[in-house]
Amino acid sequence: MHLEVIEMEAEIISVGTELLLGDVVDTNAAYIARKLSLLGIDLFRKTVVGDNKERLSRILKEALDRVDLIIISGGLGPTEDDLTKEAVSEVMEEKLILNKEIVKNIQQRLPSKNLPEKGIIKQALIPSSAKIITNELGSAPGIILEKKSKIIISLPGVPREMEKMMEEVISYLSTKKEIRGYIQSRFLKIWGIGESQVEEKIADILKEQSNPTIALLVGKGEVHLRITAKFDDRKVREEKIKELEDKIRERLGDYIYGVDEETLEFLVSSSLRKRGLKLGVAESCTGGLLSHRLTNIPGSSNYYNCGVVSYSNQAKSELLNVSSSLIQEKGAVSSEVAKKMAEGAKKAAKADIGIGITGIAGPTGATPEKPVGLVYIAISTQDKKMCQKFIFSGDREKIKWKASQAALYLLNKSI
Amino acid sequence: MHLEVIEMEAEIISVGTELLLGDVVDTNAAYIARKLSLLGIDLFRKTVVGDNKERLSRILKEALDRVDLIIISGGLGPTEDDLTKEAVSEVMEEKLILNKEIVKNIQQRLPSKNLPEKGIIKQALIPSSAKIITNELGSAPGIILEKKSKIIISLPGVPREMEKMMEEVISYLSTKKEIRGYIQSRFLKIWGIGESQVEEKIADILKEQSNPTIALLVGKGEVHLRITAKFDDRKVREEKIKELEDKIRERLGDYIYGVDEETLEFLVSSSLRKRGLKLGVAESCTGGLLSHRLTNIPGSSNYYNCGVVSYSNQAKSELLNVSSSLIQEKGAVSSEVAKKMAEGAKKAAKADIGIGITGIAGPTGATPEKPVGLVYIAISTQDKKMCQKFIFSGDREKIKWKASQAALYLLNKSI
Repeated sequence: MHLEVIEMEAEIISVGTELLLGDVVDTNAAYIARKLSLLGIDLFRKTVVGDNKERLSRILKEALDRVDLIIISGGLGPTEDDLTKEAVSEVMEEKLILNKEIVKNIQQRLPSKNLPEKGIIKQALIPSSAKIITNELGSAPGIILEKKSKIIISLPGVPREMEKMMEEVISYLSTKKEIRGYIQSRFLKIWGIGESQVEEKIADILKEQSNPTIALLVGKGEVHLRITAKFDDRKVREEKIKELEDKIRERLGDYIYGVDEETLEFLVSSSLRKRGLKLGVAESCTGGLLSHRLTNIPGSSNYYNCGVVSYSNQAKSELLNVSSSLIQEKGAVSSEVAKKMAEGAKKAAKADIGIGITGIAGPTGATPEKPVGLVYIAISTQDKKMCQKFIFSGDREKIKWKASQAALYLLNKSI
Repeated sequence: MHLEVIEMEAEIISVGTELLLGDVVDTNAAYIARKLSLLGIDLFRKTVVGDNKERLSRILKEALDRVDLIIISGGLGPTEDDLTKEAVSEVMEEKLILNKEIVKNIQQRLPSKNLPEKGIIKQALIPSSAKIITNELGSAPGIILEKKSKIIISLPGVPREMEKMMEEVISYLSTKKEIRGYIQSRFLKIWGIGESQVEEKIADILKEQSNPTIALLVGKGEVHLRITAKFDDRKVREEKIKELEDKIRERLGDYIYGVDEETLEFLVSSSLRKRGLKLGVAESCTGGLLSHRLTNIPGSSNYYNCGVVSYSNQAKSELLNVSSSLIQEKGAVSSEVAKKMAEGAKKAAKADIGIGITGIAGPTGATPEKPVGLVYIAISTQDKKMCQKFIFSGDREKIKWKASQAALYLLNKSI
C-alpha cells in the first residue's frame, strides 16, 4: 500500500514587545521549529510581533492565507497587554467563552500566587470551539483551534511551560494524516577541523547528495553535519541515513565526537561513570568553565572530585604543587606547567585522571612568543601523560569556550 | 524652534534555513532591534525565512508595503544558497553589477582562505545604486539601498561581522531627519524580589505612567524595569527619566543592583579593582560557574587569585581546611561549612575576601530537611563575616545560575 503524503505547511509567531525589541532573545521559536522539523512539517517562516492586537491580527490573517498550521507562543498571560486569544478569536470568527473549570483549576493550583480575579478570568477565556491544552507548570492554558481546514495552536511564552505543552501538541499533530512523519534527521558533531576542511574531505559525497541531503552548520567554533532523509518507510529512512553516516565516518573518523543531542560533557561524564574513574581539574585560562560544564551533568559528584582555578602562580605552586622555579623558567603558559598542573590536580583530588589547562584568554597578557589564544592542555592518567598545544581565535569568552571544548574532546579520547 | 518628528517604521528579516529550523538561535535580530529602539525607530515585526529566494522576495514585497526601512541579516555568503542580494535586486528593480574593487579587496585581505573565484564574484555583485558597507572582519560586504523613499539594508549573518557593520548603519540612519532620536530608555536591574513584589511596591507609579512609560521584563530569575521617555528635547528626556528612576529607587532601594548593560560580575570586578582587593572563591553546588563568570571580565587576574571547586568532602577538608568532624556534624550543606569554606578560600588564595557556596543543585541529593535548591553563601572579609540561606527553584542549571547571581549580589554589597 502506498501512503499518500501531503506536506503540511506552517508558520511560527512569537508575541511579546520584549522579544520584538530584543530585550529577550526568542528561543521558543527555535525550539518549536526543531520539533516541527522532526515531524516533517514544512516551516515557511517565523515572525516576532509586539503586544499589539491589530498587528498580530494582521500577521495571523496573512499567515492563514499561506499555510495550514500556525503556532503562536506568548500573549496568553493575565494582563491587559496579553492579546493573543483576542486576536485569534477575531480572525477565526470565534467567541471567547469563560471556562469555569479553568478558573477553578487556577485557583486551586496556584493559591499562593494570589492572582487578581480579573487576571484569572482573562486566562480562562477560551475560543468557543477550541481544545484546551492544560498547563501543568503555570496558569495560562494553551489552545488548539481547528476550523475551515486551518489549525491555530497558541501556547504560553514561558519556555518551560511551552516546552512541556509541546508534548501534547506533537501527539496531536502526529494524528494528522497530512504529516505522517516521513522526514528524519541525524546530526554528526565535529571538533578539531574547520568548515572548509570538512567540505574538502567529503566534497564528492556533498556533490552527489540528493536524498538523504547533507547540510553543514557552523557555530561556536565547530561544524555539525545534518543528514536528512525523506522516505515514507521508516526502515528505509534509517537505512539510508546509516549508509551515508558510515560513508562520512570513514572520511572524518575521530573528528566526529558525537551525534544528535550528545554534548562532550555528557560523553565524558558517561565514560567516567561507566569505568568508575574519578577526575581532578586544574584550570587557568578557562577560569572555571570546564568545571562548570562538567558539573552541569546531574550526578557529577560521582566522578568529579574537585577542581582548582589557579589564576595566580602562587595557587599553582601551593595548591597544585607546580614548583615556582619551573614557572619562572618556562613561564606559566607552557607545556611543562600544564603537565605539572594535570599531575597536581590528579593528586589534590585523589583522582584517577587529572587535567591541566593553561593559556592566554586575552585581550591582555600576550608576548611576542605567546600570542592571545595560545593554550596548553595536559592529561595525566594512571598509564599515560600527554600535552597538546592550541592557538584559538576569537575574543576572551570564545577562547575560554574553545579551550574547554578542546579539553573535553581530549578527555573523551583518553578515557 | 519645534522639530518635526516623523516616526520611521521598520522590519527586520533574518535569512537562513539553519535559523528557520531552529538549529541556530537567531540572536542577530535581537541585536539589531535593540539598536533601532535606541534610535527611536518603531519596529513592526521580525521575520525569519529560509534560504529560498521566492519566499524571501515575497516577504520583502509585503514588508515594503508596510514600512520604510528593512534590515536583512544573512544570505550574503559565497554559495548558491545565499540569495539575499538576488531577492533585493528583484523587488527593488535593480541590476546586480560586479564591483571589481570588492573582488580585489577580498583577494588581498583573505589570501589564506583560498576562496574559489566563483564565490568571490558572487560576493562582489552589488545592486547598481547601492551604497557599500565594508566588512572589515569577513568577505561579504553589506549594502544600503535607498530608492523610492524606501531603505533596504543588507548585512552578513555572522554576528561579529554584522555587529561591527551596524556601527556604520547607525550613523547612516542617524542622518535621516525622520528619526532624529527622540526615544530614550534606561534599564533598572533588580535582584532579590519577584515580579509581583516589584509590582506591589510601585503599583501607584505603574498606574500613573504615561511618558515616560515603565515595562517589567522578567528573565533568568530576575526582574528588569525599562523606563522609556519620548520627548524631542534630549535634556527633557534625561530629566524625566532621572525623576522617575529616583522615585522607583526610593521604593526598591538595594534591590536595584545596576543599570543598563551593567552585570553583577562587572560591578564586583570594578569594586575589587578600585579598592585593590583580592578575592578567593570556594564553590560546591555552583561547580565553577562563579569563577567562570568572574574570569569572563578582562583583567580579572588583577583581583581573582584562585578558586576551589570542592565537590568532595575530602577537597573541602584538604584544600579549604574545613574539618571533617564539622562536615560530619552539620552536613556539607550548612551555614557552618559555608563559613569555613569562605575562610578557607580567603586563606588558600592569600586574599582579602573569601566567598564560600554550598548547596544542593539537584535533581538528586535532597533530604527531608534539605531540599533541592537549598544554598548557603558565606562571605568573609577582614572585618566581617556573614552567611545567608536561600532556597532557589528551577532545574540544576537554573539553581546554579541563581546561586552564582546571589553570590555576586552579596559580594557587590560587601565590598
